Amino acid sequence: MTGDALGLRLGIIGGLGPLASADFYRKLTELTPARADTDHLPLVLLSIPQLPDRTQAILSGSDEVLTQLLAAVRTLDALGVESIAIPCNTAHHWFDRLTAETSADIVHIVDSVVEDMARSFAGRRVAVLATPGTLSSGFYQHRLLSAGYEFCVPSSASFQREVDRAIADVKAGDIQSASVALGEAFRHCREEGIEAAILACTELSVMSREVDGAGLTIMDSNSALATACLRRLGLLAGSVQPALHRRIG
Amino acid sequence: MTGDALGLRLGIIGGLGPLASADFYRKLTELTPARADTDHLPLVLLSIPQLPDRTQAILSGSDEVLTQLLAAVRTLDALGVESIAIPCNTAHHWFDRLTAETSADIVHIVDSVVEDMARSFAGRRVAVLATPGTLSSGFYQHRLLSAGYEFCVPSSASFQREVDRAIADVKAGDIQSASVALGEAFRHCREEGIEAAILACTELSVMSREVDGAGLTIMDSNSALATACLRRLGLLAGSVQPALHRRIG
Repeated sequence: MTGDALGLRLGIIGGLGPLASADFYRKLTELTPARADTDHLPLVLLSIPQLPDRTQAILSGSDEVLTQLLAAVRTLDALGVESIAIPCNTAHHWFDRLTAETSADIVHIVDSVVEDMARSFAGRRVAVLATPGTLSSGFYQHRLLSAGYEFCVPSSASFQREVDRAIADVKAGDIQSASVALGEAFRHCREEGIEAAILACTELSVMSREVDGAGLTIMDSNSALATACLRRLGLLAGSVQPALHRRIG
Repeated sequence: MTGDALGLRLGIIGGLGPLASADFYRKLTELTPARADTDHLPLVLLSIPQLPDRTQAILSGSDEVLTQLLAAVRTLDALGVESIAIPCNTAHHWFDRLTAETSADIVHIVDSVVEDMARSFAGRRVAVLATPGTLSSGFYQHRLLSAGYEFCVPSSASFQREVDRAIADVKAGDIQSASVALGEAFRHCREEGIEAAILACTELSVMSREVDGAGLTIMDSNSALATACLRRLGLLAGSVQPALHRRIG
């Protein structure tokens, strides 16, 4: 195995889905203070889109996803990476079991979001736009509440339908339709007096720069994870990074 | 080594630079006829931005780049990939020596461009926008002439300066300045009666969708390489793909 010769520092378990991983890799690159190629992080990205549907696995209690995530973690370990990022929120259902199997530091996406919020969101009530699998698993609720935020999901039944549609549309490559659905989900948030929303599925992150939150503070889990990885590996200082999220409208 | 368990089919040697690789991965994803994650290609991307400057290595005759490219190829071999893509034109200077060391099929970026041109560019005279290393190596000249095209570079001294500036600006993350320089390079092409131009450095590919060729037929080496990989691995049929290049203006 010659991975060590390449000095690979970060391992990415991606392809969940591929557009979300491309978005993560691009944001990681753009957030790096670099003037030339050599200033960037040596990394390896495994894109394994054949992984079974994460939400279905959580709801049915299947371990098939875990088996493949473990194979990915072992491959990254063999390549000698220091840290691992998984730009898929739902896959964090298996975070503890993956962490137990590796000496690499897996950077938790929700901890990254919480760090990001602590730097610039003064409110407390936050809507979480996520897959039913992520919501059912409960790791967002737990980590947000521990950090002093109020987790909420708009009560309108059509809110989650719009979120699900936006995610499915990105997976099918239809960003335009996905953006309309995401805009509708944001509208439900505003109608219920919510001030901030987390793009807590990285498929939604693909639209983080184009979509109009019309007054909502939008937090992007992919940007937050990228920033956390760069900090952890010493490529970014501990100061506030203004590019992490923004207030639109 | 558990890479085989992941069924990785394509290996990408990237980070040369990172934005160009992110562009390649995104185009590969977008060009895949997919309705869901599982329709996409399982792949591994090695991002090794610490690789020494390719142009300098070619001009000075150094073998240091080759050593690291070989380490990357061996890592991908150990992971069991069928094909390898290198979304960096200049690195193709070492193509023959890399091919000799692997049983995987390395997809040549210039052959990909030529395949793409054969499908829809009726002219013959083509400007090549590339690094001095690529131009000095001669592999574009050779492969274009073999395929019946006339290789040309505008005679104005400032043409190559604009190309070099565009590439350096992308590496420094300044896409806006890079786009201006690329627009100037295109202007030199038109002034010399050239009808088509190849973005023959994948840093330039990052701007393939935004920049205005004002009448020039633009061919993008990153899109062409992505398409060639998908065809080679059976994810795209052999028919013409209209998204590969475009006539602007």
